[in-house]
Amino acid sequence: MTFSDGFQQWMQGVQTSVETTLERSLPPAATVPVRLHEAMRYAVLGGGKRMRPLLVFAAGALFDAPAAALGYAAAAVEMIHAYSLVHDDMPCMDDDALRRGKATVHVQYDEATALLVGDALQAQAFSVLAEAGADLPPQRQIGMLRVLAQAAGSRGMCGGQAIDLASVGVTLDRDQLEQMHRLKTGALLHASVLLGASCGKTLDDMERAALDRYAHAIGLAFQVVDDVLDATADSAMLGKTAGKDAAANKPTYVTILGLAQSQALAEKLRMEAHDAIAPFGVAAEPLRQLADLIVQRKT
Amino acid sequence: MTFSDGFQQWMQGVQTSVETTLERSLPPAATVPVRLHEAMRYAVLGGGKRMRPLLVFAAGALFDAPAAALGYAAAAVEMIHAYSLVHDDMPCMDDDALRRGKATVHVQYDEATALLVGDALQAQAFSVLAEAGADLPPQRQIGMLRVLAQAAGSRGMCGGQAIDLASVGVTLDRDQLEQMHRLKTGALLHASVLLGASCGKTLDDMERAALDRYAHAIGLAFQVVDDVLDATADSAMLGKTAGKDAAANKPTYVTILGLAQSQALAEKLRMEAHDAIAPFGVAAEPLRQLADLIVQRKT
Repeated sequence: MTFSDGFQQWMQGVQTSVETTLERSLPPAATVPVRLHEAMRYAVLGGGKRMRPLLVFAAGALFDAPAAALGYAAAAVEMIHAYSLVHDDMPCMDDDALRRGKATVHVQYDEATALLVGDALQAQAFSVLAEAGADLPPQRQIGMLRVLAQAAGSRGMCGGQAIDLASVGVTLDRDQLEQMHRLKTGALLHASVLLGASCGKTLDDMERAALDRYAHAIGLAFQVVDDVLDATADSAMLGKTAGKDAAANKPTYVTILGLAQSQALAEKLRMEAHDAIAPFGVAAEPLRQLADLIVQRKT
Repeated sequence: MTFSDGFQQWMQGVQTSVETTLERSLPPAATVPVRLHEAMRYAVLGGGKRMRPLLVFAAGALFDAPAAALGYAAAAVEMIHAYSLVHDDMPCMDDDALRRGKATVHVQYDEATALLVGDALQAQAFSVLAEAGADLPPQRQIGMLRVLAQAAGSRGMCGGQAIDLASVGVTLDRDQLEQMHRLKTGALLHASVLLGASCGKTLDDMERAALDRYAHAIGLAFQVVDDVLDATADSAMLGKTAGKDAAANKPTYVTILGLAQSQALAEKLRMEAHDAIAPFGVAAEPLRQLADLIVQRKT
């Protein structure tokens, strides 16, 4: 996975490698309880853009991080993301039937299984990261476990989801919308960047601040673009139900800023992300390209 | 929390100390998102026998483990237990309205909040254990994180829950029933013992085998006694709905072995637990007394 062959090849290399690590890090479908393990694999394998693993590897490239450690970190963060999708799709949350172009877990299996799949995937994520030690100093590995746990918890992803739930039919201003997304999506994207970089070295304050700024910009850009796509693309293209935020009367960047201003904001955030990582020079090329991809993607 | 004042005082000391650690380890109710943090505290604080924390401290007493580390380990394992109760009580699982004498979280709040409370508590448990480091060598701390993650996951607690779900209306034999409980309840009780002992030292093979045997015996005894109480006590006494396993057509020790034989099995397991920890001598007195408590409890 060198970058010299170009971004597309690098991306495919990371995606293939992460798929293999995920495959090996999930319990085999044949082990008891079989149905739960099948459903966990159904939820995680063979789909998704793997944006968080790409961020892990791109940040790792800044400091020549060992590939094995990056693979574990990427698998852990992707399992957290996958579990959150399974739970978010459940009837008591967003009640969605389509995800990554497939039936959601509670539709394909049942609600109780979907609940347990999410719970077990979260535990598995921490298990994988706690196993990742071979290449990492233990103290740094504990720091990474802490980063992941905090990003996943009530002051991270779960907290953002709670604010999202409470925002249906409520008028949020732009700051409140940003605060919600900073937790709901931003926290785990941020953690991906920090985890990848931490596989390479213990970050100093300057490096940490630069990566925080980059992660903040792309995290927000990711959501702005999601809202733009939700308003402009169709379900078949997205592989999930389009237009559902508007249908659910949820505030989005498009409803608050309008389409053109949302697109301009995404572009501004892309520039800010580039700016933040300029000090890392050529090693930051994967992070730069990912910022572009996040803003310019069509799905 | 010395043991010289007797078991009752020791227990109360541990319970008080763990309540304080839990209180401090949960996000304040006033921080955003307020409703989620209130519900997390509702789910965890002010209730329960704190059996897992007691096991953590009792196992820690074997090796003079530092109290601060034990407190973190106990809080982490209790948060995992509390989250599992919140999710198990949800309508798509056991659909229960009463827990620890209070309305269950989805009744007191709503289903989506209950889902997020469980998710966030699991993340918080790993966060707390990853913070616990002051008194522990990092390598041992990582080992403890691994023990907790594995006990919580699909080959531990979540797996047992999946087998339990699949067993409604099915005839299980005694071995299958034991396998289910070994995962569903036993895995986290086992982890409690290992985590407590690990706060004191890195276990050698003999110590590990003795503790495994003890934990296996009390884990199974715990479930056998639960089944006996479910069949003989009333809801007001238990603080949860009695007789629900029989009503749900779930296999229990009482339905498979009968009441008298179940009680005899619990007593046999109590003796086995005593036997397993005999080599630790007087330091194992708290573990011995807990085995007695687990078998002789009335709620």
